[in-house]
Amino acid sequence: MRNLTLLTDLYELTMMQGYFKKNNNKKVIFDMFYRRNPFGGGYAICCGLEQAIDYVKNLHFEKEDIDYLRSTGKFDDDFLEYLKDFKFSGDIYAIPEGTVIFPREPVMKIVAPIDQAQLMEAALLNIVNHQCLIATKASRVVETAGGGVMEFGLRRAQGPDAGIYGARAAVIAGCVGTSNVLAAKMFDMVPLGTHAHSWIMSFENEYEAFKAYSEIYPDNCLLLVDTYDTLLSGVPNAIRVFNEMKEAGINPKLYGIRLDSGDLAYLSKKAREMLDAAGFKDAIISASSDLDEHLIASLISQGARIDSWGVGTNMITAKDNPAFGGVYKLAAIQNENGEMVPTIKISENVAKISDPGDKIIYRIYDESGKIFADLITLAHEKYDTSKPLELFDPNEPWKRTVLEPGHFTIKPLLVQVFKDGECVYASPGVDEICKLRERELDSIWEESKRLLNPHEVHVDISQELYDLKQELLKNHSKKEFLN
Amino acid sequence: MRNLTLLTDLYELTMMQGYFKKNNNKKVIFDMFYRRNPFGGGYAICCGLEQAIDYVKNLHFEKEDIDYLRSTGKFDDDFLEYLKDFKFSGDIYAIPEGTVIFPREPVMKIVAPIDQAQLMEAALLNIVNHQCLIATKASRVVETAGGGVMEFGLRRAQGPDAGIYGARAAVIAGCVGTSNVLAAKMFDMVPLGTHAHSWIMSFENEYEAFKAYSEIYPDNCLLLVDTYDTLLSGVPNAIRVFNEMKEAGINPKLYGIRLDSGDLAYLSKKAREMLDAAGFKDAIISASSDLDEHLIASLISQGARIDSWGVGTNMITAKDNPAFGGVYKLAAIQNENGEMVPTIKISENVAKISDPGDKIIYRIYDESGKIFADLITLAHEKYDTSKPLELFDPNEPWKRTVLEPGHFTIKPLLVQVFKDGECVYASPGVDEICKLRERELDSIWEESKRLLNPHEVHVDISQELYDLKQELLKNHSKKEFLN
Repeated sequence: MRNLTLLTDLYELTMMQGYFKKNNNKKVIFDMFYRRNPFGGGYAICCGLEQAIDYVKNLHFEKEDIDYLRSTGKFDDDFLEYLKDFKFSGDIYAIPEGTVIFPREPVMKIVAPIDQAQLMEAALLNIVNHQCLIATKASRVVETAGGGVMEFGLRRAQGPDAGIYGARAAVIAGCVGTSNVLAAKMFDMVPLGTHAHSWIMSFENEYEAFKAYSEIYPDNCLLLVDTYDTLLSGVPNAIRVFNEMKEAGINPKLYGIRLDSGDLAYLSKKAREMLDAAGFKDAIISASSDLDEHLIASLISQGARIDSWGVGTNMITAKDNPAFGGVYKLAAIQNENGEMVPTIKISENVAKISDPGDKIIYRIYDESGKIFADLITLAHEKYDTSKPLELFDPNEPWKRTVLEPGHFTIKPLLVQVFKDGECVYASPGVDEICKLRERELDSIWEESKRLLNPHEVHVDISQELYDLKQELLKNHSKKEFLN
Repeated sequence: MRNLTLLTDLYELTMMQGYFKKNNNKKVIFDMFYRRNPFGGGYAICCGLEQAIDYVKNLHFEKEDIDYLRSTGKFDDDFLEYLKDFKFSGDIYAIPEGTVIFPREPVMKIVAPIDQAQLMEAALLNIVNHQCLIATKASRVVETAGGGVMEFGLRRAQGPDAGIYGARAAVIAGCVGTSNVLAAKMFDMVPLGTHAHSWIMSFENEYEAFKAYSEIYPDNCLLLVDTYDTLLSGVPNAIRVFNEMKEAGINPKLYGIRLDSGDLAYLSKKAREMLDAAGFKDAIISASSDLDEHLIASLISQGARIDSWGVGTNMITAKDNPAFGGVYKLAAIQNENGEMVPTIKISENVAKISDPGDKIIYRIYDESGKIFADLITLAHEKYDTSKPLELFDPNEPWKRTVLEPGHFTIKPLLVQVFKDGECVYASPGVDEICKLRERELDSIWEESKRLLNPHEVHVDISQELYDLKQELLKNHSKKEFLN
């Protein structure tokens, strides 16, 4: 496993030394959450927990790390000595991968001495931000296509990890597989692909290239038809090879063509006619070429006859919104009596004011099994389905709804993944996460999955959390600024 | 070193098996190049070669890789046996990192048996695309700020590699350092940073937090002043601490404030006045908060008094254009007589028609040392400064210019990095690459560095290459599509 302990911002380490020197290493709670759904969408898909857990498990300073820190001249020997035995000793709670998530919900909650919680900030954000981003983008693409999406982005991903973990996130979001062989190997996903233009160009002509390919891969014979001219050369040559396979008694499991340029709606309709007329109604038409959810929606609306979609650059980089925007904020800090005291991050921007204290999230489902709202509460509050449940919008607290017992169900979203520094959670495989993601997407209305201007799923806060927040804001504004 | 041999698209492996089975493993030339400058800019910065070289050096199939490939059911034993001893045996030429590059120029040229060249396609593109992208984005930011840019993007980078190699690319492009400690360690760069809001919040009040920080880091005391209220609380508390340091006889090497929210132009001007009035004219004002080259240009034009810029998300993700678009195209292929035959990739889109054959690039400088044009020629053509040099625009071949001897100089851009599979190139360190990049940026006119609608640097092709291209296009259109 790669040692990513130094994958942190320098200020985390200078602050750690500060806490150490000032004997100020109190227990704290940090929340990781995001503020706005990316892509103008109505939800996000939680992703990255497995890699976050691996990172925390492996946190330790090697001798060469300590030697490096010493060489910067910024750190003293007593602190460097202390780092030698550094390990994570706290608790972590997280929302499982594949879960549908919404703004302001803590997707991860770290309860630990402040130096530990601080060290992990940058790497945890890096990992979770990236994977939530790609899973959310891919989910939009897959939902729009209605399935059959292949992740093809490795060559345009922002470095090897972006290719590898981006592929994982895309498959979690419903892609049928990935072209990325290393990612497929690491996470037991389906590797996909056939051949490139260079295969065609390395033979005397297109027919011979197709013929050779069909001989080697009779069972997975998807021929790329746009090297010279899709309709004049590619599709006729493909049909010629399919005919020859048929004559030879070969019944391929999967066969067909791939379009990689030109107008995919027009070409797919023409190619479909040609294949059908030749008796190859079960031949697949696959398409790739700068696809994203918007282009796919448009192609479908124009009657494109495309069975499978190879999506690269726009999905693996989340091109229209390439950062997720997750943040990591202090929610509580231990006082001298050992009590956890809620803290609040003030901002002139109301949306940036954090929710204070030790919190949990309840997901409230209506009778049809759809999400009615999420409810963020303080951790000691208990909610169950035996009593009426009053919900209100924290921005418009006069808007209240009461759910009567029997008409709603409740599920807590956060699960414990570390306890006293030990991992107490077994990450499910990608297959299992996929199944959860499928159920999760079923739990939100189609209206919230709309690409543009989706219906907003309510994230409410409990009365007690609301009152606490108001009190902290009031106290804060009364405080003298200059001490 | 990480084994990235399987970091490839599946089709590269299925084609490799195809070449193997069909005994068709000819020697080829692949060019890596890009088609359009990103961000609407006038140039790109070449970056990523060191990691590309490491990748090629380390290419080999481990037993577990071969076992995995066997498990997919797509590969036969003879091919898998062959992979056991697979290594790169070809030649690679590349443009050194830090060089200014332009569209259509081969930044890397691979001369190798087709299976090897094919295997490497996805990973080489992944590495070089990513690093050219970030170096180019960072160069725009640095040129606009006029220096003093700090790379702060780790938490929003697309995975650990994007944070690490993105930081390297940003420093190569002129950032003074990075917050990313692991990247700083790996590439001997300057790690930067002081403290976060959570440091302030972990103390009783802002003054105590500043005071504590100044005691631990008297020499690098940049105080974050926006936790409560920048002008009412943060700056006055910082000044109080700076006064106390002065009274204690401490002369910090570097001290000042960091603004992280609010209107940075207004706040920096007000803070500057307050610091100056208190006698701290040498206090630095550093700013961060969703910066990019456009916002920096705007802040500067509004008279912002900012000495140093912390740039995160927008630079590390190249937010407005998060993919570089480099491609990898077959340029020549060996025939039965062992001759390299130029190939061309046809496209209805003229810009997508590739330049055929084994090529090199000459950079032509005018008498002032600025780039007059780049000239792509066939490898066997020789150009020197003793004869008049005729240049013409390949899209408008009637537009011709003749440079007379004594009025221009010439430099070939490609250097050999692998010869018969052995690396023959020593990658310079980041510092040295930085110096080259500085000279390189000096060699293009300011007009070509403009953020919007820059002057285009000409990339011409030689008469011989032009004629070859025309001939191949003509022959191609004469060819029967159906063989």
